[in-house]
Amino acid sequence: MSLEKKKQPKLNKAQFEGRTPELRSRLLNAQFALRKAGRRMIVIVAGLDGAGKGEVVHRLNEWLDPRGVETNAFLSKTEAEKERPRYWRYWQAMPARGKIAIYFGSWYTGPILRRCNGVLDKEGLQATTDRINSHERMLQQDGYLIVKIWLHLSRASQEKRFKKISEKQNNRWRMLPLDWEHLSQYVDFARVSRQVTDATNTEAAPWHVIPAKNANYRDVAVGETLATVIEKAISEDQDSSKDMANGGTSKDHQRVTVVDHLSQVDLTQSLEKKDYSTELEELQGRVNTLVMRAWKERIPSVFVFEGWDAAGKGSAIRRLTNAIDPRLCRVVPIAAPTDEEKVHHYLWRFWRHLPAGGRMTIFDRSWYGRVLVERLEGFATDDEWRRAYDEMKDFESQLLEHGVIFGKFWLHISKEEQMRRFNKRTKVSWKRHKITDEDWRNREKWSEYEDAVNDMVGMTSTDRLPWTLVAGDDKKFARISILREVCRLFEDRLGKE
Amino acid sequence: MSLEKKKQPKLNKAQFEGRTPELRSRLLNAQFALRKAGRRMIVIVAGLDGAGKGEVVHRLNEWLDPRGVETNAFLSKTEAEKERPRYWRYWQAMPARGKIAIYFGSWYTGPILRRCNGVLDKEGLQATTDRINSHERMLQQDGYLIVKIWLHLSRASQEKRFKKISEKQNNRWRMLPLDWEHLSQYVDFARVSRQVTDATNTEAAPWHVIPAKNANYRDVAVGETLATVIEKAISEDQDSSKDMANGGTSKDHQRVTVVDHLSQVDLTQSLEKKDYSTELEELQGRVNTLVMRAWKERIPSVFVFEGWDAAGKGSAIRRLTNAIDPRLCRVVPIAAPTDEEKVHHYLWRFWRHLPAGGRMTIFDRSWYGRVLVERLEGFATDDEWRRAYDEMKDFESQLLEHGVIFGKFWLHISKEEQMRRFNKRTKVSWKRHKITDEDWRNREKWSEYEDAVNDMVGMTSTDRLPWTLVAGDDKKFARISILREVCRLFEDRLGKE
Repeated sequence: MSLEKKKQPKLNKAQFEGRTPELRSRLLNAQFALRKAGRRMIVIVAGLDGAGKGEVVHRLNEWLDPRGVETNAFLSKTEAEKERPRYWRYWQAMPARGKIAIYFGSWYTGPILRRCNGVLDKEGLQATTDRINSHERMLQQDGYLIVKIWLHLSRASQEKRFKKISEKQNNRWRMLPLDWEHLSQYVDFARVSRQVTDATNTEAAPWHVIPAKNANYRDVAVGETLATVIEKAISEDQDSSKDMANGGTSKDHQRVTVVDHLSQVDLTQSLEKKDYSTELEELQGRVNTLVMRAWKERIPSVFVFEGWDAAGKGSAIRRLTNAIDPRLCRVVPIAAPTDEEKVHHYLWRFWRHLPAGGRMTIFDRSWYGRVLVERLEGFATDDEWRRAYDEMKDFESQLLEHGVIFGKFWLHISKEEQMRRFNKRTKVSWKRHKITDEDWRNREKWSEYEDAVNDMVGMTSTDRLPWTLVAGDDKKFARISILREVCRLFEDRLGKE
Repeated sequence: MSLEKKKQPKLNKAQFEGRTPELRSRLLNAQFALRKAGRRMIVIVAGLDGAGKGEVVHRLNEWLDPRGVETNAFLSKTEAEKERPRYWRYWQAMPARGKIAIYFGSWYTGPILRRCNGVLDKEGLQATTDRINSHERMLQQDGYLIVKIWLHLSRASQEKRFKKISEKQNNRWRMLPLDWEHLSQYVDFARVSRQVTDATNTEAAPWHVIPAKNANYRDVAVGETLATVIEKAISEDQDSSKDMANGGTSKDHQRVTVVDHLSQVDLTQSLEKKDYSTELEELQGRVNTLVMRAWKERIPSVFVFEGWDAAGKGSAIRRLTNAIDPRLCRVVPIAAPTDEEKVHHYLWRFWRHLPAGGRMTIFDRSWYGRVLVERLEGFATDDEWRRAYDEMKDFESQLLEHGVIFGKFWLHISKEEQMRRFNKRTKVSWKRHKITDEDWRNREKWSEYEDAVNDMVGMTSTDRLPWTLVAGDDKKFARISILREVCRLFEDRLGKE
């Protein structure tokens, strides 16, 4: 960072007071424009201890309208955070539409410290910064503004600063770091930080390095950076078509697939009632034992159920949950998002429900709605659903990396079988509510859905994240297939007893 | 429970299958009516181990439309739950409008076990059941249906049942309790359970004791109980005026107060700039140290700031937060509730933000909106805001019982001073946004607000939960008063160092 050689910029008190009124108005106007546009901003305040991260956070809280700002501090992980994938805590702290989230500590803190301590090797660090870049790009593509502030302080300045604080008894509390001291580690820390900021200095989310020696200059520079970023984004919005804010249509995305996966499912497979009963009993017993073992080892599990209307998702899920202590398992039915969900990234509502250690979450419909109903009904733009394939794979990879037992099922039935079930449902009083006008409308789009499902399976199946296509014309066969696959997934992870 | 002497009711398979179709339709219709009416239902499934709580939960999930049901299982407390008041976990699991929450484990489990183990004495148990009763009454008054199911099993039946399960290897997993075995404790457990259910068998939330020996009978009886409760509530809604669902107007509530607390505040108090600077520096240092000590001891703190528009809440809060490591403290500005908040009890949104151990939450406006703006603007019915005084005191008592450091401030200014500040604000560019039409409208209702504030202070001040009325015409005086009171509250709890 070549700043060290330059004279450090400075503002004296009079200069500071001269500049702040205008800056404050400008910042507030920018904030109000952001609110009006429904944009979301994440401000990451990073840098050396002693550079004044806390002071900057306080200053921003003073200058901005507090009704639109949330300051999120990430201390050492809580138990709940430890039990979820690494990014869970950040998803919990995402700004809603119109809001600014200030991150004190962020997804940068951990990797830098872990590299300094030698827990991460070079390749590990690389994987971490790749993950950061794809995470930030995903947010930026969804319209988030990401402002990354690096407060820069030379080693000499840091030393001087600590000295000054500790001499001035009265003022001592102002800047002492909470838990750790990095002074002795300055060289290591500066070097690793440099590597990390270089590797993550992307177009989607560039770093703003701000000289932090002079507090007045530092605060004004941070304020101006925020205002500039917002003003630029808003004026770009106005220049471009309205669609652009949501991604618009472009052609640089991967094409969708061509293979017809669904037709490869043998729907004639079935099971005799007697065999079904025996197998059901045996598999439910195994599931119960496996879930208990996962509970003891605090290993969470996540299962996704997708499928045609009337494919038997509900009853298949029940055969699974009936085998499990209800305290360990939660079914999350996914319908239209709530208002709080709508103001967040579409994946937010799923992160929200990730299970703690040893628990199971079953999603009855899932994030794949993005590339099914949202694609076909136009709730997601072309860009949005196309890039969703990678986003969802990335999300699921994070589950695997955390050690989550994960499976996804598509319950497949023929169009004729669906018709039979629709008709049957209308005849049984307590099943009638399951048939809605929407089901009939969806049925009319059968072949479009077929394409979307085939694309989904093709685009989001990997060796480690395969779709299980379940032959569902015979319900008994389907339920047993699913239970067997669930057992296999658990046994793969836990080993046979 | 005289059931033990009677012949246990029973349904054989044919009888069960004969009755379920109609019952399922009836239950579903009831559930849809509940959804349509926006009512909320909590189903507590309690009883001895081996009585089939888990099976009942599974059965309800099968019979009800899963899109409207959430099963909440309360296992041993998580770290996050331990760090909050006892009821926090139950608030997290409250059903939204139109939803049914099934509680497997509930606020009954802990007290019964603690009494069996001797952790709670008789008085302790009494206090616990009083708290339960007031909690349930509060929910019932807000329109929640509370169905408490006690699955009853005689000692002989329980023993037989466990024996049968352990003999039948294959089926063994079905009913083994997760963590504990109560068989040997049957007598104790039955006696304490009886005491607790008797003490909590209220009109607002009566117990339904259901013989559990025969599983078919048990499940049908539970289903019928639920359907009956919903049908009754819906038909009562239709019989009575629309207002009744929200409480309506009645006269059996405590009258509001008559004392004019606000006029007793000496608004002429002020502070010289020099003294202010010295005191501010000293008090902020003390606050910083105290918050650090609380952090080390994992003691949370909660502060409420209410006051007139332009009374200086924001700047007073900033003087407090500037003294604190931003990682330890969170300001929650309270504006109009979000949609997710609206479908819950009005206190839900505040429970949501309670701090973990060692952290501070500052509410910039608070639950007291219920008896201020909601009272005056008619957002809350007469009944609702009148009973809110007790509800809020009860809420705050739960904070104190948990050991939370808690303070509430009313920032008082004169009507003239408010005018001066309104005028000043319109002249400063970066303050102009703080003045809205609403502020002027509120100002016109000054004397009505005065009454509401006086009532609030009178009705919700107790020895342990006093309001601090802050003389705010001089901002410097106000800020110092607040910081001093914050220090006092911390020192009372932590002791001088």
